Amino acid sequence: MPAPNAFYAQSGGVTAVINASAAGVIETARKHKAKIGKVYAGRNGIIGALTEDLIDTSKESASAIAALRHTPAGAFGSCRFKLRGLEESRAQYERLVEVFKAHRIGYFFYNGGGDSADTCLKISQLSDSMGYPIVCVHVPKTVDNDLPITDCCPGFGSVAKYVATSMREAGFDVASMAKTSTKVFVLEVMGRHSGWITAACGLAAEKDGDAPHILLFPELTFDEDKFLARVEYSVNNHGYCAVGVSEGVKSKDGKFLADAGLKDAFGHTQLGGVAPVIASLVKNSLNYKNHWAVADYLQRAARHIASATDVKQAYAVGKAAVEFALKGHNAVMPTIVRLSGKPYKWSVGMAQLKDVANKEKMMPRSFITADGFHITSKCRDYLAPLIQGEDFPPFKDGLPRYVVLKNAPVSRKLDTPFQL
Amino acid sequence: MPAPNAFYAQSGGVTAVINASAAGVIETARKHKAKIGKVYAGRNGIIGALTEDLIDTSKESASAIAALRHTPAGAFGSCRFKLRGLEESRAQYERLVEVFKAHRIGYFFYNGGGDSADTCLKISQLSDSMGYPIVCVHVPKTVDNDLPITDCCPGFGSVAKYVATSMREAGFDVASMAKTSTKVFVLEVMGRHSGWITAACGLAAEKDGDAPHILLFPELTFDEDKFLARVEYSVNNHGYCAVGVSEGVKSKDGKFLADAGLKDAFGHTQLGGVAPVIASLVKNSLNYKNHWAVADYLQRAARHIASATDVKQAYAVGKAAVEFALKGHNAVMPTIVRLSGKPYKWSVGMAQLKDVANKEKMMPRSFITADGFHITSKCRDYLAPLIQGEDFPPFKDGLPRYVVLKNAPVSRKLDTPFQL
Repeated sequence: MPAPNAFYAQSGGVTAVINASAAGVIETARKHKAKIGKVYAGRNGIIGALTEDLIDTSKESASAIAALRHTPAGAFGSCRFKLRGLEESRAQYERLVEVFKAHRIGYFFYNGGGDSADTCLKISQLSDSMGYPIVCVHVPKTVDNDLPITDCCPGFGSVAKYVATSMREAGFDVASMAKTSTKVFVLEVMGRHSGWITAACGLAAEKDGDAPHILLFPELTFDEDKFLARVEYSVNNHGYCAVGVSEGVKSKDGKFLADAGLKDAFGHTQLGGVAPVIASLVKNSLNYKNHWAVADYLQRAARHIASATDVKQAYAVGKAAVEFALKGHNAVMPTIVRLSGKPYKWSVGMAQLKDVANKEKMMPRSFITADGFHITSKCRDYLAPLIQGEDFPPFKDGLPRYVVLKNAPVSRKLDTPFQL
Repeated sequence: MPAPNAFYAQSGGVTAVINASAAGVIETARKHKAKIGKVYAGRNGIIGALTEDLIDTSKESASAIAALRHTPAGAFGSCRFKLRGLEESRAQYERLVEVFKAHRIGYFFYNGGGDSADTCLKISQLSDSMGYPIVCVHVPKTVDNDLPITDCCPGFGSVAKYVATSMREAGFDVASMAKTSTKVFVLEVMGRHSGWITAACGLAAEKDGDAPHILLFPELTFDEDKFLARVEYSVNNHGYCAVGVSEGVKSKDGKFLADAGLKDAFGHTQLGGVAPVIASLVKNSLNYKNHWAVADYLQRAARHIASATDVKQAYAVGKAAVEFALKGHNAVMPTIVRLSGKPYKWSVGMAQLKDVANKEKMMPRSFITADGFHITSKCRDYLAPLIQGEDFPPFKDGLPRYVVLKNAPVSRKLDTPFQL
C-alpha cells in the first residue's frame, strides 16, 4: 500500500513569504517518502480541491521548489472563498473529503489566516465522522498579524520591514524638501481592523523628530482637531510631518475615512483611499503642501526587502506542519514562540486549532502612546526582532528573479463536476 | 593666498542617489586641497546661498561623507526655487556673487535638473561680468530623465529599478488572487511630462502575459474605450491585468485625469491621483475588482533598491564636475556617454551648459508600441542597462542605516539680510 498523498493550499491575501511556507511543506514531505506520497496543491486554494483542480508538485524540480523560498505571492494561486459552518456548507465539506479520498489524500495542510484555521478544524472533524480521517494541520500566514497564541504571524514581519523602510526613506525625502515645498507626507498602509502594520511604520523613528511623527491607528477614533494640531506642531518643531495611516481609520460616526463619499466630475463614486482624504484635510485646514502614497499590494508583495526572520519563520512553520502531521498530531497549528526578546530567540510551538479558530489577536492599547499618535517602547520591543535580517532574492538583469512553477494538473478521478 | 573654496547645492526634487553625487564632489575636492579650500553647501539649496546660510562640509568626517553614497534624499536640503532671467532676477544673481565673493568661493557646483543648469550658466556669465569669475559646473540629477545630451540622468535608473521591481512583485500578487478576487491592479508613477518612469515599469514584463499588461504614457492622449477593451482582453487572456500609469496622463480635452474634479462628502476638492481614477473607471465600466497603489516619494527615495549603475554614475558625475573645474572648464556639465549597449559600457563626457539649459529630452515615439500600451524592444534596450546591479545600503536593526550630517553653519560675513 503506497503512502497517502498530501494536499496543500494557500488561502486569502498572499504575502511575501507564503511561498516560503510552501517550500517548507514540500521539501519536508519529500524527505519522508515512506510516509507521504505526493504533495498535491490546490489550484487557486481550496477552490482547487472543491473543483478537483489539483496540481502535482512532484513535477517541479528541487530547484524550483527551493526558489519558492524567495518568491512572493501564491505560487499555486490563492482565493478568497470562505467555507461557512458545517450545517450551512455541509455539501462543500463533504465534497472536499470526497476529492481527498479519490486522490488518497491523508494529510491536509492549509496555509492561511483565521478563516482557514476554522476550515481546517472542520475538515478534520468531518473527515473523521465520514470514516475517512484526514490529518489536518494549519500553516499560519497573515500580514494582519492577528492570529492568537502564536507570537507573530509569518508574512507580517516582511510587511513591517517594508513599511518602516519606506517611511524612513520618504521621511528623508520630505525633510529635504520642506523648506520650500512639501511639508506633510502621508503613507497609507494595510490593516483594516488592527494597527499592527501602522505600528510597524513607527520603527522608522529612532528618536524624537524622526519620521513618522504621527500614526493613525484603526483602534482609535480619528479626532480631526487633535490630529491637525499635531501636524502643525510637527511642522513648527521639526520642519515637516510624516504620517502613517491605516486604511481602516474611522471617524466619530464609525465610518471608514476612506469611504468619505468621494464623487468624480461625473458623479460616480470614487474608490477610496484614506491617504488622499488625510492629505486634503491638511491642505484645506492648514494649507501645507503635501504628498501622499498608497502602498497597497506593494507592501505585502515586497519580497525584495523581506525580513530574514520572517522568511525563516515562514519556512519553519511549513516544515513543522509536516513534522507534526507525521507524528500524528491532528487539528493543530505550528506557532512562533518567543523565547527571549534581547537577544531575540524563537522556536516553533504547537497550538490546538480549537483554540485558534475564530479568535483575533488585537494590538494591546499599551502598544500605543497615551496621546494615540505613536508606538510605545513596549510595542517597539515586540516589533523590532520581527524585521531583523535581510534575505535578498537573486537578481537577474537588475530585477528580482522569481520562480513561476509549471503547475501541472493531476488527472481527475471524479466525473462529477462541482458547482461552487 | 589659500585656495578658493567651493560651493555645492542640491536643487529640485531629490533622488535616491543625489547624495552619491555630493559624495563624489566632496571626496574629490578633498583630494585637491592645494586647489580647493573648503566645500560649503547651501542649506536648502540655492536659498542657502541667497540667505548666506552655508554649511561647512569640512566638519563632516570622511565616513559621514562616504555614507552619503548610500543615503537617499538631499543631505543639505534642497529647494524648489527658480531664478528667472538675468533682467528679472538681477538682484538675486548679484547677491549670489556677493555671497560667493565674501566666502572666497571660486567654484560653483549645482546639482539638479534643467532649471538649475540654466541658473548655473547665468551665474558663470554674471560673475564674469561682475569681475569675480566663478567656475560653474552643473551636476546632472533628475528622476525625469529629461536632460539633453547625456544618455541618461542620475536618479532615473534607481526609480526605474524600483518601479519595475514593484510592478513585478504586485503582478505576482494579483496573479495569485485573480481567480476569486482582484483582477486589475493599477500602479501610479511619477513623470508628469514624459513617460520614462512609466516605460521603466515595462521592464518587469519579460514575455507576453507578464505584468504590466498596459502602460499609460503622458505622451499619448488617454482613450477610454481602447483602454477598457485592452483591460478586458488582458483579463480574458491572462486572468488579470496590471497597469502602470503616469501621473501626467491627460484626457482628450487636455486635462490631467488626476484632476478629474473630485469632491469629498463636504464638497471640498480632493487632491488627485490618477490611479484611483483609472481604478474607478475599470470598476464602473467592467465591474472588475481592483486595487491601486500610488508610489509617490517612495519611488524616488527607495535607496534600498537603488541601481548600482545609477549609484556609480551619480558618484562619477560629482567627481567629474570637480575634475572639470580644476582643469578650468567653465559652464559645463558632465554627461553619461553610452559606449555600448550589450555589454553595457559607459564613460563620462562633457556638455556645454549653453547646449543643456532649457532643453528637454522627450521619450521618442519609437519607444512606445504602435498600439500605445507598452514599450518597444528599442526602449527596452535603452532602459535595461540603467537598472543593472544592486548596491544595498548597510542595515542596522533591520532597517537601512542612512547618515544624517551635522550640517554645521559657516559664520556669516555679510550683515545684509536678503529677502527672498
